[in-house]
Amino acid sequence: MNTFGRYLRFTSFGESHGAAIGGVLDGMPGGVPVDTAFVQAALARRRPGNPDLAGTSARREADEVRFLSGIYEGKTLGTPIAFLIENTDARSADYEALADVYRPSHADDTYEAKYGCRDARGGGRASARETAARVAAGALAQCLLSEAGVSVYAYTERIGGACCAEPYTAYDLTQVYDSPLYCPAPAAAAAMQAELARCAAEGDTVGGCVCGLIRGLPKGCGEPIYDKLTARLAAAMMGINAARGFEIGAGFAAATMRGSAHNDAWTGVDENGLLHTARNRCGGVRGGISTGEDIWFRVAFKPIATLGQPMEVWHKRDGLKKQAAGGRHDVCCVPRAVPVVEAMAALTAADMWLACR
Amino acid sequence: MNTFGRYLRFTSFGESHGAAIGGVLDGMPGGVPVDTAFVQAALARRRPGNPDLAGTSARREADEVRFLSGIYEGKTLGTPIAFLIENTDARSADYEALADVYRPSHADDTYEAKYGCRDARGGGRASARETAARVAAGALAQCLLSEAGVSVYAYTERIGGACCAEPYTAYDLTQVYDSPLYCPAPAAAAAMQAELARCAAEGDTVGGCVCGLIRGLPKGCGEPIYDKLTARLAAAMMGINAARGFEIGAGFAAATMRGSAHNDAWTGVDENGLLHTARNRCGGVRGGISTGEDIWFRVAFKPIATLGQPMEVWHKRDGLKKQAAGGRHDVCCVPRAVPVVEAMAALTAADMWLACR
Amino acid sequence: MNTFGRYLRFTSFGESHGAAIGGVLDGMPGGVPVDTAFVQAALARRRPGNPDLAGTSARREADEVRFLSGIYEGKTLGTPIAFLIENTDARSADYEALADVYRPSHADDTYEAKYGCRDARGGGRASARETAARVAAGALAQCLLSEAGVSVYAYTERIGGACCAEPYTAYDLTQVYDSPLYCPAPAAAAAMQAELARCAAEGDTVGGCVCGLIRGLPKGCGEPIYDKLTARLAAAMMGINAARGFEIGAGFAAATMRGSAHNDAWTGVDENGLLHTARNRCGGVRGGISTGEDIWFRVAFKPIATLGQPMEVWHKRDGLKKQAAGGRHDVCCVPRAVPVVEAMAALTAADMWLACR
Amino acid sequence: MNTFGRYLRFTSFGESHGAAIGGVLDGMPGGVPVDTAFVQAALARRRPGNPDLAGTSARREADEVRFLSGIYEGKTLGTPIAFLIENTDARSADYEALADVYRPSHADDTYEAKYGCRDARGGGRASARETAARVAAGALAQCLLSEAGVSVYAYTERIGGACCAEPYTAYDLTQVYDSPLYCPAPAAAAAMQAELARCAAEGDTVGGCVCGLIRGLPKGCGEPIYDKLTARLAAAMMGINAARGFEIGAGFAAATMRGSAHNDAWTGVDENGLLHTARNRCGGVRGGISTGEDIWFRVAFKPIATLGQPMEVWHKRDGLKKQAAGGRHDVCCVPRAVPVVEAMAALTAADMWLACR
Repeated sequence: MNTFGRYLRFTSFGESHGAAIGGVLDGMPGGVPVDTAFVQAALARRRPGNPDLAGTSARREADEVRFLSGIYEGKTLGTPIAFLIENTDARSADYEALADVYRPSHADDTYEAKYGCRDARGGGRASARETAARVAAGALAQCLLSEAGVSVYAYTERIGGACCAEPYTAYDLTQVYDSPLYCPAPAAAAAMQAELARCAAEGDTVGGCVCGLIRGLPKGCGEPIYDKLTARLAAAMMGINAARGFEIGAGFAAATMRGSAHNDAWTGVDENGLLHTARNRCGGVRGGISTGEDIWFRVAFKPIATLGQPMEVWHKRDGLKKQAAGGRHDVCCVPRAVPVVEAMAALTAADMWLACR
Repeated sequence: MNTFGRYLRFTSFGESHGAAIGGVLDGMPGGVPVDTAFVQAALARRRPGNPDLAGTSARREADEVRFLSGIYEGKTLGTPIAFLIENTDARSADYEALADVYRPSHADDTYEAKYGCRDARGGGRASARETAARVAAGALAQCLLSEAGVSVYAYTERIGGACCAEPYTAYDLTQVYDSPLYCPAPAAAAAMQAELARCAAEGDTVGGCVCGLIRGLPKGCGEPIYDKLTARLAAAMMGINAARGFEIGAGFAAATMRGSAHNDAWTGVDENGLLHTARNRCGGVRGGISTGEDIWFRVAFKPIATLGQPMEVWHKRDGLKKQAAGGRHDVCCVPRAVPVVEAMAALTAADMWLACR
Repeated sequence: MNTFGRYLRFTSFGESHGAAIGGVLDGMPGGVPVDTAFVQAALARRRPGNPDLAGTSARREADEVRFLSGIYEGKTLGTPIAFLIENTDARSADYEALADVYRPSHADDTYEAKYGCRDARGGGRASARETAARVAAGALAQCLLSEAGVSVYAYTERIGGACCAEPYTAYDLTQVYDSPLYCPAPAAAAAMQAELARCAAEGDTVGGCVCGLIRGLPKGCGEPIYDKLTARLAAAMMGINAARGFEIGAGFAAATMRGSAHNDAWTGVDENGLLHTARNRCGGVRGGISTGEDIWFRVAFKPIATLGQPMEVWHKRDGLKKQAAGGRHDVCCVPRAVPVVEAMAALTAADMWLACR
Repeated sequence: MNTFGRYLRFTSFGESHGAAIGGVLDGMPGGVPVDTAFVQAALARRRPGNPDLAGTSARREADEVRFLSGIYEGKTLGTPIAFLIENTDARSADYEALADVYRPSHADDTYEAKYGCRDARGGGRASARETAARVAAGALAQCLLSEAGVSVYAYTERIGGACCAEPYTAYDLTQVYDSPLYCPAPAAAAAMQAELARCAAEGDTVGGCVCGLIRGLPKGCGEPIYDKLTARLAAAMMGINAARGFEIGAGFAAATMRGSAHNDAWTGVDENGLLHTARNRCGGVRGGISTGEDIWFRVAFKPIATLGQPMEVWHKRDGLKKQAAGGRHDVCCVPRAVPVVEAMAALTAADMWLACR
């Protein structure tokens, strides 16, 4: 099932070292202006080899998106928008040695168990390269959301032990991509750079957290019961490579709180008639349905499994075996995950918005 | 969308104070033995007024399940299994005062925003009463899973500040429902009882965590990309009332770990040819696909919003207004959430298993 | 997959001689007035033993619908509407002899092939009794459609050799259920009565055709490509028991026509700006999307397979075997299929309307 | 919804005169050998300008398929198979005059009603060019079916008044594409050629019928109730451009038959234990589930709406207006519809087979 969404459906394709990756976005209304430069800019932020991001892979891809359908004279037609991104810097020789081994904490063995085969070149479909297609689709979804007055943001909150000191409300999220490591808190960003440098020096990797925000989604979007907005958003985020946890609003902290402290006290209605709360601890969703306030959430990412130091792999024939790490890999996936979290939030919000408008 | 699952599809219905709640489970293979006593026992564990569970609602429901179809001579037919549970102790008079007010941290206003109307009696469809239908369906899913050699467990890990000291591997999860508060760690359970007593005395409520486990799901189940087993499980859990966070394996702790510490070292293959890891930090899922090892995860629940003390509600006409809490409510939802987490894990595992068998 | 529809989803359940049949209708907007007497009246038209319909089964069912959820103070809540119809006149003894045999042109053997088992009592889930649930759901859909100004009709056009002489435009379809055999053409109805009498006398059965009409569906409903309104309607109709063919507009006759004769000449726009055609040969759908004109179509039904004369069944052990027909069966399914065609058209139209409003 | 199928999901994209058309086929198992020459050959049969097919459009497209993903070393990976076909001979100048007019019996006005806009170049997405993507996907599905021992065939049965004299069992369907007009009955083919010549001379078009056959689908595939194999197949066929009717087995003829004549008498079990019938009038499906016998059906196509003579179009500003036909069009869509019917049958059969294997 390589399709995401119910009303706005995104189907992606592509292996890391195949001919191309790309996708088809179906369900966009007709007449939506498409800013292709915005799509291209979003791709640039996630691109391997981005010189602004410390600790990213040395693989260099132009990541130029080519639209094949669904856009005519700068606007959507309502028909499927297909696009592709050619794989140009695919050095599969790096990976040949990996065909017979299962790397620790990778999906090598599980893909083989499921499909009976595997494209071992660069992780095949399991590679984070697939997320480029998500970013392009998310940027298209943002073209729709901006018509609807909905904004989506994400930023690096934590890398290892280095973490933003304040909640999202303290930062100007419109400038995230101008900040180092996509972290809007300068002090935290400096600490993160130091953490990454230490990891790189030790041939190690590190995990972290991304915060996400959906602002302006009208009240009443989402579904109660199994398909709550919280559930859909959790699935969107946990479907990102290396995601290990999701929380919304007060999240795990709510588990240790009293109801009297956690409850969202009403503060009154604003000029648009929207009822507000003092601290929005519910994270903008009550009973699975949007409240009209900010939807804020956090995603935890594990450290990248491929280290810059030898690892013990499992060889199909020989069993345990020491192997030097091949390929070109990041020290931490978190900064590059920021545009991916943003994209998945945009696809989720657009899907929900289409369902309830 | 009141349907859960793709291959094993559960559609539920019912308002808290309507005629009945229930559901239709579609997609069960034919010929599966159905243990109706097991289904009834599962319902008893979640039942309001369960005398074994401190701090639960005084509402008393027999919660007797009546099967309407899909079972013949003790076995499934392959056709939809419909069941209902009559609402017998529905005292709607308790709730009449609530028709014009929005309680804090409830879904009163969001349901109205979405549907333009609301059944204010006992929270209507937003009531946790709906989870009884999940528990019955989950027990049916377990009838299928037990044929497949898959087991599902859940237990209370935390209530407020009281928490199990060890990971799930330290406990005998087959005896959870014999332990107080469904917590297998006696010392932690005693601390939880104390915490609940303090809350009750103060007219307050408290949050907590439930741990879940799926054991025996064959390697190769699940889907990569958007529909990862992690994503499906996260959606299943975040769709439970009051859930605020989900993590799998090392979860949020992975965000502060180094790759060298987080990576799952291979230990070798067992007698069935299954490849094992030292610590299964990935939580039994790699690349969205089951590894064949234990799938373990945690769900955070917020404190119940209805307190035993007056709350400031929003009255549609009069604005902010002090109101005494009506109805009969729990001090903490966590113990009663245990069979619900188990049920949703069973439905998810059965759905995944059907897709890949 | 016992669910029909994408936005308005109807999930049904029940075996012919089980405890009950029924369904869950999910996706209805909130606040729609529900006319339960209208639902009950629709069920009465399809009821076995309806004294107004020649040639129907002698089975007598009250077919009283009980609503369990989703309706409050006479209006929909937006939550799932569950209902059930108890099976009261289930004489399973009639069918015991059938457990080991496969009747010709029945689904006995195919159900067993698919599920590995079968409820042989009265055909189990394959029985036309299941269509009562469709009729109830369709009547609920009509409650929504009537708010939207959409009407749905169906009538008996043909029974064996007896057929209406004129197209649907010649008849007053609002009075169909007052006419004999639900046929609005008196002469044809008389010929049909004679045909049924002959069949009954000979212990035989006969096929026929039902015409259907959706009026008032706004222009622009439906989806191009795979999910055309024609495709969805065809699936809805071919999913009815005993349906063997579907055509829309000029249908099969179009295969022998020239384009110059088949093309729909424009006649101009009406006072609402709707563009009209001279003869609407396309049947109200162009490119899979509604034109705003009448959507008219025809469904062919095969003769009922259970005859009033001995049949050669296949006995699992003994092979070919002469067996007297058991149970109580109709001579022709067509009149009772009329409310079922209407119901499926209503469910399809409501689903399409919800998707495009 | 530009996606077809539930287990084997095909999502297509592309406008007639956009950059490219193509699709993504998701759900193929891993390890299936892909015969790309077979895919290319299938496309050649449907290609405009095919010199073997009388009465086809003069548009010339290489229709060369480029695979982008999902295939590695000649076999499927289990990941999505994406492909594209560039549009090379798109002469949009032909169509500029059409931007402000609605042609009779086209989807010009309905697309605009649905999407608020339209790509008027060559019919945009409503063009039959889209069916090339279906043919490529169907050929991929056949790669899977051939592993499963399932064969799919289609042929031209009727063009206007010229029709095959015998049922499908009289012809060698393996040689269809070697016969003129893809009609295996030489006398009928000659009559069809004459009919096409007459139409062409008169600047007219004509309708016709395609017969389809699925052979070897195991008994027990399909779903009862709403999702019957008959319903799925009907939807697949009615979703093809210009399809107006569908029937299976005895089809509409069953409406005038007696049960005693229509019933399928059992003849006994074959060497594989499959139970056979004398005449398979049910068309290989009983109760929505495959019987293991041939699944045979017929699709009616209306005459092509664009004539070689002036037509009266509706101009948005000027109303009725005589206009010469632009573009390059076929006299009859039926021969080129043959590979499309085959493709949709293959996609349907493969989807059903994956669901029940």
